[in-house]
Amino acid sequence: MKDKLIQAAIDLFDEKGFKGTSIEDITDSIGATKGTFYYYFKSKQEMLKDIHLTYILDLLEKQKAIIQDPNKSNYQKLYDIIYLIISNIRTKGKNARIIFREMRHLEGVYLEQIKGKRKDFRLNVQALLEDGIAKNEFDQNVRADISAFSILDMVNRTYYWYNPDGELTEEELADYYLGFILNGIKSKEPL
Amino acid sequence: MKDKLIQAAIDLFDEKGFKGTSIEDITDSIGATKGTFYYYFKSKQEMLKDIHLTYILDLLEKQKAIIQDPNKSNYQKLYDIIYLIISNIRTKGKNARIIFREMRHLEGVYLEQIKGKRKDFRLNVQALLEDGIAKNEFDQNVRADISAFSILDMVNRTYYWYNPDGELTEEELADYYLGFILNGIKSKEPL
Repeated sequence: MKDKLIQAAIDLFDEKGFKGTSIEDITDSIGATKGTFYYYFKSKQEMLKDIHLTYILDLLEKQKAIIQDPNKSNYQKLYDIIYLIISNIRTKGKNARIIFREMRHLEGVYLEQIKGKRKDFRLNVQALLEDGIAKNEFDQNVRADISAFSILDMVNRTYYWYNPDGELTEEELADYYLGFILNGIKSKEPL
Repeated sequence: MKDKLIQAAIDLFDEKGFKGTSIEDITDSIGATKGTFYYYFKSKQEMLKDIHLTYILDLLEKQKAIIQDPNKSNYQKLYDIIYLIISNIRTKGKNARIIFREMRHLEGVYLEQIKGKRKDFRLNVQALLEDGIAKNEFDQNVRADISAFSILDMVNRTYYWYNPDGELTEEELADYYLGFILNGIKSKEPL
């Protein structure tokens, strides 16, 4: 029942927004009572927090699998993490839209909880960069802390403009990002 | 009086947030009447839009001066635009904080107006990159459209973590970003 409530809420949040959806809208759409809702959630905001938490914990788990792979270089791992974020736009569809659009409705302790998990994701990228600097895969002057912010800000914001059904595939975009991050945009054959 | 109202509002929005500030709070703080407020603004949201618009029009004007300078390479212009954004965090202080924090309270036609100006800023960066590609300053494989998004997403989000009074100066951060964007993070002396 909890999953059913969450799925109904995701559909409605996507259609009418978090603010525009009442608890009654959610329960009505699956023929449940408000009591059922309150059995599982303290509030609509707690439910939104649960949706966020499920989303980010799934990403963290997949990120962990990528990072722990002993057969991959840090370049490959970085590519895989970028691809993970981009491909989520398509595969998580409505969930991803809600995560990005409705984040602003999270407040207080719920917001702090989500921010903590987002920070874990970023610190894992930072650790990857530090490992790559130690192995001389990345330049010795790279600041792992700043670069982790830069890479994630760039890739996360893809959501706001990228259409996975447009001319550019997810693989092409992830390739482009990796090239941008590794080699920059300066001409390699100056005039 | 309009400027006085705006300055009072900026102080209050910074202190108590947009939602936590009433029109009466604003007028009371400078001993004005609500009628005075409504003489200049239709609503608190229109006032917020005006604050945003002033901020972004100022940035657009400074960006224009940078781009039109005939003595600068596109590398230098890119540096100057990055520095412009970063240094605004300090010089615009409260305004910058309100712009980033309270953007989410803009809706409808006001939001569209601000989005349009932000798009102009981005398209100017894209045009700069296109010019640099044509002059072989930037690599022929650079996608000016994607890179404009990437650069601005990265630099704009600096606001969320950068402390201009910390260990890293604005110049050092702008230098770091330019190096990241031009040369990437890959080791130039592979093992």
